[in-house]
Amino acid sequence: MTQVHYDKIALIGIGLIGSSLARMIRKAGLAGSITIASRSGHTLAAAKALDLGDHYTTDNAEAVRDADLVIVSVPVGASGQVAEDIAAALKPGSTVTDVGSTKASVIRQMQPHMPSHVQFIPGHPIAGTEQSGPEAGFAELFAGRWCILTPLPDADPDAVARLTRFWEACGSRVDQMDPEHHDMVLAIVSHLPHIIAYNIVGTADDLEMVTESEVIKYSASGFRDFTRLAASDPTMWRDVCLHNKDAILEMLARFSEDLASLQRMIRWGDGDKLFELFTRTRHVRRSIIEAGQDVAVPNFGRNVQAPTDSAKPD
Amino acid sequence: MTQVHYDKIALIGIGLIGSSLARMIRKAGLAGSITIASRSGHTLAAAKALDLGDHYTTDNAEAVRDADLVIVSVPVGASGQVAEDIAAALKPGSTVTDVGSTKASVIRQMQPHMPSHVQFIPGHPIAGTEQSGPEAGFAELFAGRWCILTPLPDADPDAVARLTRFWEACGSRVDQMDPEHHDMVLAIVSHLPHIIAYNIVGTADDLEMVTESEVIKYSASGFRDFTRLAASDPTMWRDVCLHNKDAILEMLARFSEDLASLQRMIRWGDGDKLFELFTRTRHVRRSIIEAGQDVAVPNFGRNVQAPTDSAKPD
Repeated sequence: MTQVHYDKIALIGIGLIGSSLARMIRKAGLAGSITIASRSGHTLAAAKALDLGDHYTTDNAEAVRDADLVIVSVPVGASGQVAEDIAAALKPGSTVTDVGSTKASVIRQMQPHMPSHVQFIPGHPIAGTEQSGPEAGFAELFAGRWCILTPLPDADPDAVARLTRFWEACGSRVDQMDPEHHDMVLAIVSHLPHIIAYNIVGTADDLEMVTESEVIKYSASGFRDFTRLAASDPTMWRDVCLHNKDAILEMLARFSEDLASLQRMIRWGDGDKLFELFTRTRHVRRSIIEAGQDVAVPNFGRNVQAPTDSAKPD
Repeated sequence: MTQVHYDKIALIGIGLIGSSLARMIRKAGLAGSITIASRSGHTLAAAKALDLGDHYTTDNAEAVRDADLVIVSVPVGASGQVAEDIAAALKPGSTVTDVGSTKASVIRQMQPHMPSHVQFIPGHPIAGTEQSGPEAGFAELFAGRWCILTPLPDADPDAVARLTRFWEACGSRVDQMDPEHHDMVLAIVSHLPHIIAYNIVGTADDLEMVTESEVIKYSASGFRDFTRLAASDPTMWRDVCLHNKDAILEMLARFSEDLASLQRMIRWGDGDKLFELFTRTRHVRRSIIEAGQDVAVPNFGRNVQAPTDSAKPD
């Protein structure tokens, strides 16, 4: 059986993902000690107040010294700087991984700095919420979610197997694919949805004939669903847009073509084609629920509530 | 105090909204008796099996005879036919209302058939789920949600006040506006979000370089949120598209302009402008939560779950 325990794990970055990992590593006893690094003293103090690790530092190099596993959890645009910071201090035989939402760009940024005596295995847990920062994390974040590893061609199979076991011990299921395919898949399942959500909330915010107060009051009719994604961390999503440009532009072009076609159906009153599209999309949700990737209750369970006082008759 | 109880209420159509009303009317004792009409014998049998009313019929005219309040809850494209069906059987002094998602079109379809001895007061409860049919309804659907009435200029203030009290007794808060403004507001808060959701799910379904299985497995990274709206009733949404065309085309044009601008920021790597947009949209969600129109918990509460067995360490 592959060893899942690491003597020392270093977490570089302690936002939603880093702090959820810290909690799960503690809970499942996956490390002898946890060292947490953040370049922000404020964030580090928050992590310390939450008792997320054993050691805390603002110095990335100091954090990785003697670490058997280094997990980089920073906005993807900061990956290159972190790699440069830690390169000389990495322990021979250790594994370096990351959790970034884009993989080809992270590899381009980090790989040139990685010494030959460490295993660099890029990764991406498909899990998150719209919240950010060390307070937002929780140990169950990865339960039942997928984690995608994109090992390079010369990766050591034992190191990959051990990292796989680590993510499984965090509750995840683990897949492998090449970085370019990862970036294409994520462009449609994650990046495009976030961009579209930011865009529609921006459009609504700009209207001059419908007030913001009206948008907010009547948002339960659909709009509110988009505001969750559009409340995600701006730094993270700016970096995703800048670092997965080609795949995102490809998906945006397809989306816009399809939307132009749908707009034409509406303009010309083509009810049959509208009905056909609106029927075809229903099965996707059923499949997602069957795959355990969403809850089956209506309205994501938000309507399951006790009636309020105002619901009582006279 | 305005009387809220009606001796006899007739519900024409018994889908998600009609059946939720039936349950709430019973629960809050808002009517002496409930008559349910559906043109589908299958739907009517389901309503009967659920014990949603006191009388059942496939004949709309028979349903409204002696009714003090008639609530039409059918896809908006069927409103004109229902109005024609019931016109001659309506009781003098009774009130006819509806729950349709578009108001100008419903008024155009129904108003010409309404006899002068009844009060026709169009309405729209801003509440729903992605499910449909009599089984999908529940009494608490309207609790804390808004209901918009769009009374015509010659409406009797007492009849409007009584209908307002009825919706308040169902748990709703009630607003009034003119039908054209309603249709513009709903185009942005409800119709555009549904159309965008249907479109993105269609785009993902059509991809040749990403499999459907991949879209489903990794959907927790954002995509799954859109699949809820895209699982809504196809007949209802076809009719909305056909019956609120002008306002929807206006909102689609604005959305597409904004998306083209966002796409340009991505193509040219304008990180500052991306960051500015992604920051600006965050406050909208906070306002919606403060207004009681969505839950504050991350991921709509879907992540708040016990860790699964697979989350246990070795």
